[in-house]
Amino acid sequence: MAAEAAGARGPGGARSEAAPHFTLERGSEVAPRAGLLRTSHGLVRTPAFMPVGTAGSVKGLSPAEIRTAGTQILLSNTYHLMLRPGADLIRRLGGLHRFMGWDGPILTDSGGYQILSLHENVRLREEGVEFRSHLDGHVEFLTPERAMEIQADLGVDVAVTLDHAILLPAAPEAVRDAGERTLRWTERSLRHAATLTTPTGLPQLRFAIVQGGGDPATRAEMAARTAALPCDGFAIGGLSVGEAKADTWALARAVNGALPANRPRYLMGMGTPPDLLDGIAAGVDLFDCVLPTRNARNGMAFTSEGPLNIRNSAHAEDSRPLDERCRCEACATLSRAYLRHLHQAGEILAHRMLTLHNVTFYQTLMREARLALERGEFDPFVDEFRRRYRERPAAPIP
Amino acid sequence: MAAEAAGARGPGGARSEAAPHFTLERGSEVAPRAGLLRTSHGLVRTPAFMPVGTAGSVKGLSPAEIRTAGTQILLSNTYHLMLRPGADLIRRLGGLHRFMGWDGPILTDSGGYQILSLHENVRLREEGVEFRSHLDGHVEFLTPERAMEIQADLGVDVAVTLDHAILLPAAPEAVRDAGERTLRWTERSLRHAATLTTPTGLPQLRFAIVQGGGDPATRAEMAARTAALPCDGFAIGGLSVGEAKADTWALARAVNGALPANRPRYLMGMGTPPDLLDGIAAGVDLFDCVLPTRNARNGMAFTSEGPLNIRNSAHAEDSRPLDERCRCEACATLSRAYLRHLHQAGEILAHRMLTLHNVTFYQTLMREARLALERGEFDPFVDEFRRRYRERPAAPIP
Repeated sequence: MAAEAAGARGPGGARSEAAPHFTLERGSEVAPRAGLLRTSHGLVRTPAFMPVGTAGSVKGLSPAEIRTAGTQILLSNTYHLMLRPGADLIRRLGGLHRFMGWDGPILTDSGGYQILSLHENVRLREEGVEFRSHLDGHVEFLTPERAMEIQADLGVDVAVTLDHAILLPAAPEAVRDAGERTLRWTERSLRHAATLTTPTGLPQLRFAIVQGGGDPATRAEMAARTAALPCDGFAIGGLSVGEAKADTWALARAVNGALPANRPRYLMGMGTPPDLLDGIAAGVDLFDCVLPTRNARNGMAFTSEGPLNIRNSAHAEDSRPLDERCRCEACATLSRAYLRHLHQAGEILAHRMLTLHNVTFYQTLMREARLALERGEFDPFVDEFRRRYRERPAAPIP
Repeated sequence: MAAEAAGARGPGGARSEAAPHFTLERGSEVAPRAGLLRTSHGLVRTPAFMPVGTAGSVKGLSPAEIRTAGTQILLSNTYHLMLRPGADLIRRLGGLHRFMGWDGPILTDSGGYQILSLHENVRLREEGVEFRSHLDGHVEFLTPERAMEIQADLGVDVAVTLDHAILLPAAPEAVRDAGERTLRWTERSLRHAATLTTPTGLPQLRFAIVQGGGDPATRAEMAARTAALPCDGFAIGGLSVGEAKADTWALARAVNGALPANRPRYLMGMGTPPDLLDGIAAGVDLFDCVLPTRNARNGMAFTSEGPLNIRNSAHAEDSRPLDERCRCEACATLSRAYLRHLHQAGEILAHRMLTLHNVTFYQTLMREARLALERGEFDPFVDEFRRRYRERPAAPIP
């Protein structure tokens, strides 16, 4: 029963302070935190990064490789899976874990952001949001209730409530309207989710999205009102949508300062390795981002000395690995020269190996950050990382 | 010194019957044979299938996976590597084995077939063949000597001499002309190869291509004359170019009947699983073919019950593996339903996993054929395989 996952609740639906699914081991609201998230498919030591498996696959990687790269939990997209192959099909086949051969925790987003970003002519009503499939143009109608039904069908460990996302900049009235609707949709999502079951019968956690635009006070208000709802954790939406980085972190801090310390926070859709360290410093526990997987396709590798583009002619005869500090299969067995050749020749092994390396790099960074937090040495760890890591301007590509 | 690999030679260049690099363990000229090929990078138990790594990569597979699939020796393409990244670069980086991270035997073809098949306006002279790169249009001139230099630079275990391939049907005079030129080019290739060294200093075997068109008598003559040359083995070229299957095997038998039993024969560029068994029956030791790798990209999987196309809607909710008899990673962990979804969603994991499965299927077939040969039970093995394996007409793809 999905309802059992949400922890103890008072009669009015408000959560008690007991949070059996999350233990905060270090830190507080807006400090670097180390925590332990318990899900139906295992533990997640936070801070943690979730690689993106949009369509139920982390670009080119096998489930065993996703694990070997250090992944504790991955993200998949409700929007994409509802359109193809369909949540009902995945439910009949036993849920997303069995379908994709991954037995670790999975979080799905609710689809709200994809509907906003992939479509023109979205028709949004109080009841829900109507849009046309980007695959075949058929009309879909997603409601808060339906978003939770899909995620229950997928049987994921963490479901996220439907939000009304808006693109910034936007007028304060529009931000307020979307934020209020998000709160109403969150309530509806959580109420309906309590009636649902997963294909395995295992319980599901539910995270509620905090919106609120670019104003810290509005963000803090929305966060506090979301925290009063019976959710198991929080997702911070609508950041990294064009605002300055300093504003991003001010907003994240405003949100986290208004959230209770004892439930996990997930910052949606960002960022670079330095962003992740800034996010941890602002009190974030979970991250997801397409950068390590998407940039691999374009030949970009993250290394301890900063990003490099394998297309660059400087690598043509370089027999060194992508990153001498890395122990992934690509770095253990293949040279920059060979990976550059594969990329130039359009060989998918290049895409695959750069993806494996980038995900390993992100996961290694998060594991080391967590260890530094345990030792009480987070700030020196960040300093040491930044000293080595340089966001070099892109070298000319021949 | 590459010259040392060719075994004992008489003063006139003709080989003695001693062939230290190949031991025939079962069979004779046109019977199913089991043999042992010794190369600078290890042993090959024949009959053996070589997956194709055109540009130094077997589509999507890591070197470890190529090995795990059961591969003893792989093929790469001189033509593609000479154009990109260039044989000189690979030599400077220590040779193709080190470049691509594969420490087993490698055979390269000579480039003759690619020049014929990829180009219009090829200018063929007695000296060599002029063509324009399919990558950037620059003019290349490949001679028999240059073909061997490139393969020495690559440091492969088995180099193949340059031939004059022609497409069938062709006039008898054209076939004769190309066959005579191939013999002259073979002599030039072998003479020059004796002066070359590999980047590692390890010796190289050289196979000579037998041409001769669609007439068995001409084929037998060309085979006998090639066998008088100091080569370490033979490649049968110009088959499976549109002729009937029965003609293919009649020609292969004519060639093999005229070749000495104690040197290995490699049938270039074919074929389906039943073709491989027919080829073994005709006395062939080595095969290569793009079918298992290329067809994977189109969603085609070889199974013990025959080929299947993963795009077919029949697989949409099928939780079985591609082949219940297979123990590859794809079959051990992923369902047809998931692989179909990945293919439909354009995920490269589908391509990768079908390639892994197909190569594993081919290698398992060859290993089982070899074991049946050792037991003296090749014919019953083939009967059993054919009883199960059906070349089904392609089911409608929705």
